Amino acid sequence: MSNPTAAILIIGDEILSGRTRDANMHFLAGQLTEAGIQLKEARMVPDDRDVIVDAVNTLRKSCDYVFTSGGIGPTHDDITADCIAAAFGANIGVRKDAYDLLDAHYKRQNKEFNEARQRMARIPDGATLIENPVSIAPGFTMENVNVMAGVPSVFEAMVASVLPTLTGGAPLLSQTYRINRGEGDIAGPLGELAAEYPEISIGSYPFTENGMFGANIVMRSTDAAKLDAAMVKLAGLFPA
Amino acid sequence: MSNPTAAILIIGDEILSGRTRDANMHFLAGQLTEAGIQLKEARMVPDDRDVIVDAVNTLRKSCDYVFTSGGIGPTHDDITADCIAAAFGANIGVRKDAYDLLDAHYKRQNKEFNEARQRMARIPDGATLIENPVSIAPGFTMENVNVMAGVPSVFEAMVASVLPTLTGGAPLLSQTYRINRGEGDIAGPLGELAAEYPEISIGSYPFTENGMFGANIVMRSTDAAKLDAAMVKLAGLFPA
Repeated sequence: MSNPTAAILIIGDEILSGRTRDANMHFLAGQLTEAGIQLKEARMVPDDRDVIVDAVNTLRKSCDYVFTSGGIGPTHDDITADCIAAAFGANIGVRKDAYDLLDAHYKRQNKEFNEARQRMARIPDGATLIENPVSIAPGFTMENVNVMAGVPSVFEAMVASVLPTLTGGAPLLSQTYRINRGEGDIAGPLGELAAEYPEISIGSYPFTENGMFGANIVMRSTDAAKLDAAMVKLAGLFPA
Repeated sequence: MSNPTAAILIIGDEILSGRTRDANMHFLAGQLTEAGIQLKEARMVPDDRDVIVDAVNTLRKSCDYVFTSGGIGPTHDDITADCIAAAFGANIGVRKDAYDLLDAHYKRQNKEFNEARQRMARIPDGATLIENPVSIAPGFTMENVNVMAGVPSVFEAMVASVLPTLTGGAPLLSQTYRINRGEGDIAGPLGELAAEYPEISIGSYPFTENGMFGANIVMRSTDAAKLDAAMVKLAGLFPA
């Protein structure tokens, strides 16, 4: 598959401690698949500068696009923007366009635009801003790295701002066929079918329902005709 | 913190395509925190042999424990056991104890113990089995790598089998304090408190509720007395 590739980096102690269940990886995975961008890896790391810098530098070289989630708010544990600057060897400082956006926002709310809030206007040199229609404080794109908030409503809004600017590929099509038999009963013929269609990703996802075993067979490809042909063959092997 | 460290490797195309939302990372994260084992990284990768082997070899060297989820069933896309063997340079073959467990299980169910199902008895040389009370097919532990099923009910049962065999540390204690003010209003004093207690991890997790901003401040430490002291100070800074 020659579609563009992507990685997601989820940043935050609260994810790794089990306190918070991340929702952004799953959301973005679906969005990327629809856009024809192949998600190759998701990585979740703590609020640790060296770890974040290393991960960003590894992923931005191995994938066409990187998306980060978390750590761009006003508090002391929000270190992502500085880590991105460090990863690129770029300077970082308060930027006027981001500052003005936030200044106007807090004036409208009659809230003090204090030093902590001004941290959210710190953007690495050379980045472009990602619009945040929910809470104004912008994300930013630094080369192929898109830096977004961790709060799901804000993350989702930023994804909506960024995705149309990216070059996608042929959408990855997916068809699912449900078989009410245990995986062990179908694995042999299914493996032969997978060998016959090496360009189609064929996954088997077992389930139990009311004490009965079954499996959903999911076929994925950017080629609609081949996908249809393989699906017809699968249905022939295991009639409903 | 000198507690043992861990990494989780979630294996499966269906996670990265957004078809399936992983539940195992979050479950295990909570279990490890309770056991005093510090989760340092979670990584999600596709059903790709080279990627899995690389990830296993990286993580097993950087952490005390590795846990994998997914890819140990009977179908062609279940390649985890072979990848673990390759990562350790170990042979893999059908092992008698695993074979006997499965043979008895399928006899009881009057199901054929066919070649596909026998694949689930393939265990790398030198591994010990992890009991699976749900669907019998065992996981296994190879040195510090614990290989478990992706189906959440089975994964959770395997975690229950494995965790008591591991050496944990002092449990990571956590206290949460809710502040009904925006992060930007509290970030200054909170940052000073974090600087005063460097051994305590202090995270700020913003929320909005009925249009009002707030933040949950979570403090984590293995030292109950220090945690209490910091929490008293926090409550003094931001009285309810």
